[in-house]
Amino acid sequence: MSQKFLYAKHGPDDPTRPVQIGSAVFGGADVPVIAGPCSVESLEQLEEIAQTLKALGIVCMRGGAYKPRTSPYGFQGLGEPALDMLAQIRRKYDLAIITEVMTLEQIGPMHDRIDCYQVGSRNMQNFDLLKALGRQQKPVVLKRGLSATLQEFLYAAEYILAGGNPNVILCERGIRSYEPMTRNTLDLAGVAMLKELTHLPVIVDPSHATGRRSLVPACARAAVAVGADGLMLEAHPVPDQSVSDAAQAISLERLHALMGEIEPVAQAVGRNLHGEGSR
Amino acid sequence: MSQKFLYAKHGPDDPTRPVQIGSAVFGGADVPVIAGPCSVESLEQLEEIAQTLKALGIVCMRGGAYKPRTSPYGFQGLGEPALDMLAQIRRKYDLAIITEVMTLEQIGPMHDRIDCYQVGSRNMQNFDLLKALGRQQKPVVLKRGLSATLQEFLYAAEYILAGGNPNVILCERGIRSYEPMTRNTLDLAGVAMLKELTHLPVIVDPSHATGRRSLVPACARAAVAVGADGLMLEAHPVPDQSVSDAAQAISLERLHALMGEIEPVAQAVGRNLHGEGSR
Amino acid sequence: MSQKFLYAKHGPDDPTRPVQIGSAVFGGADVPVIAGPCSVESLEQLEEIAQTLKALGIVCMRGGAYKPRTSPYGFQGLGEPALDMLAQIRRKYDLAIITEVMTLEQIGPMHDRIDCYQVGSRNMQNFDLLKALGRQQKPVVLKRGLSATLQEFLYAAEYILAGGNPNVILCERGIRSYEPMTRNTLDLAGVAMLKELTHLPVIVDPSHATGRRSLVPACARAAVAVGADGLMLEAHPVPDQSVSDAAQAISLERLHALMGEIEPVAQAVGRNLHGEGSR
Amino acid sequence: MSQKFLYAKHGPDDPTRPVQIGSAVFGGADVPVIAGPCSVESLEQLEEIAQTLKALGIVCMRGGAYKPRTSPYGFQGLGEPALDMLAQIRRKYDLAIITEVMTLEQIGPMHDRIDCYQVGSRNMQNFDLLKALGRQQKPVVLKRGLSATLQEFLYAAEYILAGGNPNVILCERGIRSYEPMTRNTLDLAGVAMLKELTHLPVIVDPSHATGRRSLVPACARAAVAVGADGLMLEAHPVPDQSVSDAAQAISLERLHALMGEIEPVAQAVGRNLHGEGSR
Repeated sequence: MSQKFLYAKHGPDDPTRPVQIGSAVFGGADVPVIAGPCSVESLEQLEEIAQTLKALGIVCMRGGAYKPRTSPYGFQGLGEPALDMLAQIRRKYDLAIITEVMTLEQIGPMHDRIDCYQVGSRNMQNFDLLKALGRQQKPVVLKRGLSATLQEFLYAAEYILAGGNPNVILCERGIRSYEPMTRNTLDLAGVAMLKELTHLPVIVDPSHATGRRSLVPACARAAVAVGADGLMLEAHPVPDQSVSDAAQAISLERLHALMGEIEPVAQAVGRNLHGEGSR
Repeated sequence: MSQKFLYAKHGPDDPTRPVQIGSAVFGGADVPVIAGPCSVESLEQLEEIAQTLKALGIVCMRGGAYKPRTSPYGFQGLGEPALDMLAQIRRKYDLAIITEVMTLEQIGPMHDRIDCYQVGSRNMQNFDLLKALGRQQKPVVLKRGLSATLQEFLYAAEYILAGGNPNVILCERGIRSYEPMTRNTLDLAGVAMLKELTHLPVIVDPSHATGRRSLVPACARAAVAVGADGLMLEAHPVPDQSVSDAAQAISLERLHALMGEIEPVAQAVGRNLHGEGSR
Repeated sequence: MSQKFLYAKHGPDDPTRPVQIGSAVFGGADVPVIAGPCSVESLEQLEEIAQTLKALGIVCMRGGAYKPRTSPYGFQGLGEPALDMLAQIRRKYDLAIITEVMTLEQIGPMHDRIDCYQVGSRNMQNFDLLKALGRQQKPVVLKRGLSATLQEFLYAAEYILAGGNPNVILCERGIRSYEPMTRNTLDLAGVAMLKELTHLPVIVDPSHATGRRSLVPACARAAVAVGADGLMLEAHPVPDQSVSDAAQAISLERLHALMGEIEPVAQAVGRNLHGEGSR
Repeated sequence: MSQKFLYAKHGPDDPTRPVQIGSAVFGGADVPVIAGPCSVESLEQLEEIAQTLKALGIVCMRGGAYKPRTSPYGFQGLGEPALDMLAQIRRKYDLAIITEVMTLEQIGPMHDRIDCYQVGSRNMQNFDLLKALGRQQKPVVLKRGLSATLQEFLYAAEYILAGGNPNVILCERGIRSYEPMTRNTLDLAGVAMLKELTHLPVIVDPSHATGRRSLVPACARAAVAVGADGLMLEAHPVPDQSVSDAAQAISLERLHALMGEIEPVAQAVGRNLHGEGSR
C-alpha cells in the first residue's frame, strides 16, 4: 500500500486517528453507538427514540430525510421537513445528528442542522459528491458500496481526504453475494483488513448487512469483537410499522438489551461501550 | 412483472420501442454500433477515429470528457475542452456523439454539443442524476451497475421514464463476479431476460465487460446473436497508448475487421448491421 | 500460462484438438448438439426423444441415471435400470450416450453402456473421481464448478489429462452470482477466454445456465457465436412433466425450431451445425 | 423451515444439541478450539504442535493426511504414513484427531486412527461420501462449500443425518466473493443465521476464511462473539515453512496469545473457552 495515499497508515503501528461526531469519539478507547430510524417519520417518532438514546447514554442519532430508493415509486423520505425535525431534536436533546446526503444541493441546507453527513452505498463512487464533502469539515460516514472492493472503498475515502477534510469514518454494511437468506453478506474480516490499511475509524452497520432484526445483536457483538470503532443500528419504536427497512429495525427495548450485551464484549477487547453500559 | 411500470412490456408480444441517436435506430431491424475512445485525448485522435467510423458506416461516436475514476489521482478526463472537440467532430463528420454525464451541472453544457447522455455503472443509482435526465428529451444510454440486479436496472431506467423521457437505452457491460481473468462477467443471458421484460432497447459493451481486447470480437458476435439491439465498442488509433482502459480498446483496423465478422451474425438472427457491412 | 500443463496451448495458434463422442466431433468444423432429458424417466420417454434426435440429425443423447440432488429427499435418479434403458436406446438408434457419473463405483457398470462420462458441477473438484476417469479412455464432459475460476476449471481437466486420458471436453454451464432472475450466470466471455488458453473443446449448456426455457434459444445462438464447440440442451417430450429441472427443459418441437435458428449462426462464424440444419 | 428435516430446530427455543469430539463438547457452554497444521509434514512437526496444544489445554488436533489440491501437481499430502503419525500422536498425547476424508476408500483405514472426519468445502456436495459418513457414528465436521447457500449447507448435513449419524458439526470457512484482499469472505452473519435454523453445532475456521494470518485473531474473536460453538485454527511451528497454506497459519506463540484474547470474549457471551484460558 503506497504511502502517498492520505488514508494509508505510515506503518503497521500507526494508530487510528479518531474522528469526532458531537461528543462521540470514533477510533479511540470507546465504541460509540449511532442509532435511530431508517427514515424520519414524525417528530413524535424522533422524540420517543431520542429519549431512549439519552437514557442509554447514546449520543449519536441517525435518521434519513432523503432516502435513496430502488424504485422511483418508493417512499423517498420527508425531505426538508425531516431536516427541521432532526434539528429540533438535536437542540432539545443535545444529540449529534447523522443523516444521508444524496446530492450537492442538500449539503448546504443540511450544514447547520446536522453533525455528520452520511454517504450511502449507492453513492460511494459519486465522485462529485465526495469532492464536495471534501471541501467542508463536518465528519462524513462513508458506507461501503454494495460490491466495492476494500481498495475501491479506500480510494473513495481518499476523494474526501484529498479535498481537505480528514474527518472520514468508514462503514462496513454488508456486500452483495449469492446468499439469499441475508440481505447482504457482512464482511467483518474486511473490517479487520481495513484496520491494517488505514488510520481511519471503521464502524459497522449490522442492520443493513443482515436485513433481519434477529441477527443484529449477534452481528453487533461480533463487530465489536473484530475491532470495529463503532456501530450504526436501526431502531424504531414499533419496528414493523417502519415505513422503510422494517425487517431490520430493532425495537427500543431490544436496543436497550443489546447495549448490555455489547458492553462486556467491548471490555473483552480492551474498550468501552460509549453509552449506558459503560457507566 | 407489474404493468404499472413504464419500462414493462404490455405483454410478451409487445415489441421493442426503438430509440434513436442521431440517425441510428436502436431496437429496430438494424444493430447499430457505437464506437470511439474511452477518453477524449486530442482533436487529432478524434479526427482519426471519426474518419474510420465514417468509412465503416458507423454513425455514433462515444468519447469521455469526464471520467469517473476509482482513484482521485487518476486521469479525470479533459473536461470542457473535450466537449468542444466532440462538438467540432460532430459538426464536421455528422456523427452522433455519446458521452458520459456524471453531475447535474454537466447536463446543461453538454446539451447542445452532444446527441446522447451516457450514465455510467457507478451512477446507475444516482437517482438525482436520473431524475434530471428524465426532465429532458435527449436519449440516455444507461449502463448496468456493477452488481445491479436486472430488477434494479429496470427500476433505475424507470426513474428516467417516470420523469417524462422515454428515450432510454439499457447497456449491459458486465457484472462483478469472483472470476479474475476477465474484468467483469458479461451477462448475455441477462440481455435475453431484459428483452422479455422491457420494450426498451438493450445494447452490449463487450469492452468493459471483458477488459481484454482479444475477447471483444467473440463477445460482440455473441451479443448480436443473443438479440442485443446495438453494440458499444472502445476503439483507439493506438490502443496501447490509450490514457485509460488501454487493455480493452481495439485498434481501428480490428474494428474494421470486426464489422465484417458481426454482419453475418446479425443477418443470421434476421437483422442488419448498421454500418459498412450492411451495404 | 505455463506450458507444462497438458491442457495448455503451445502457442496462440495451437488449434483445438478435437474430441469425439460417437460420430460427433467436438472442436472441428461442426458444432454438434447433445440433447436429452435431465433424468431418464422411462423407456417410452427415451424412445420419443431418440426418434426426434434422429430426425434432427443429432447423434448425441444425454440422460441422467444418477442425479446429484441438493436435498437427500429429492429424486435421485432411476439408477441401474436407467443405464439399461440408455444402453437399449444406444443400440436401437445408434446414438452416442452421455450420462453423469458421481462415484468411482459407477464407472465400471457404465463403461459398456455409454459413450461419454459427464462430471457434474458439484464434482468438478472430486479429485478422486477425476483421477479415475483419467485412467480410462472414454471421453469426459467436465462441467465447470458452480463458482470455479477458469484456472481451477483447467486444473480440474488437468487431473484427467495427467492420468492419461486426453479426451476431455469442457462445459460452461453458468456460474453462481447475485442475480436471482436466472438460475446461474452464463459466462460466455469465459468460453472465449478458455479457447485462448486451452486446446480442449469447450461446449455450453444454456439450460442449466439460465434455468428458464424461454432463454435457452437466445443463449444457444450466442454460445455458437462466441465460438463454442458444441451445445448441451435439456429437451423433454412434455417439459412441464419433467421429474427434475422442469423449468429449463425445452420441448422437442422447440428443439426442432432451435436447430434451424442455430444453423445460420454457426455458418456466420464459419462452422456447421452437426444435425439436420447442416444438410 | 419445514420440520421434516432432521437438521431443523423444532422451534426457536430448541437448543443446540452438543456433539462431542474426544472430550471436547461442541454446542455446550464451552467453545473448544481445534488447532493444528494444514498438512501433516513429519512426526517432529506433530510432536511440537501437540505439546503446545496440551500446554494450552486444547484437546482437538487437526492435520491433513490427504489434501485436496486445485492442481494435480500440488502436494497431495503424505497419505497413509500421515495417518500413522496422527494415530501415534493421538495415543501419546491423548488428543482427539480430526482429518479430512476425500474418498470412500479412506473411511475405513481412518476409522481406528482418528476421532472425527472432516469433509472439505470441495466435497460438501459429494453426496456419496456424505451418505457413507452417515452410515457410521464418528462425528463429522462438514465445511461449507465455497459458494454454498446456507440452505444447501443444511441439506448436505441432512445427507449425513438421514443416514443415521447425528454427530454433525457445521463449519463456516468463508465463501467466494469478488473481494481479492482476503482469500474468502467470512460469513459470520451466516453463522448467526444457522444457529436459528439448526440444532447442529456451528464452528468457524478463520484461517481458510481469510488466508492471512494477521486477520485470524480478530476473526476468531468475532466468531466467538457471534455465537460460534468452536474454532478451527491452522497453527504451525514455523508458519512460513508450511508446505501448504503457509500464508494463513499462525505460529504456536501466536496461538498461545490468541487463547488469552478469546477467553474474555467467550466469557462476554456467557461461555468458556475450552483450553488454558478457561482455567
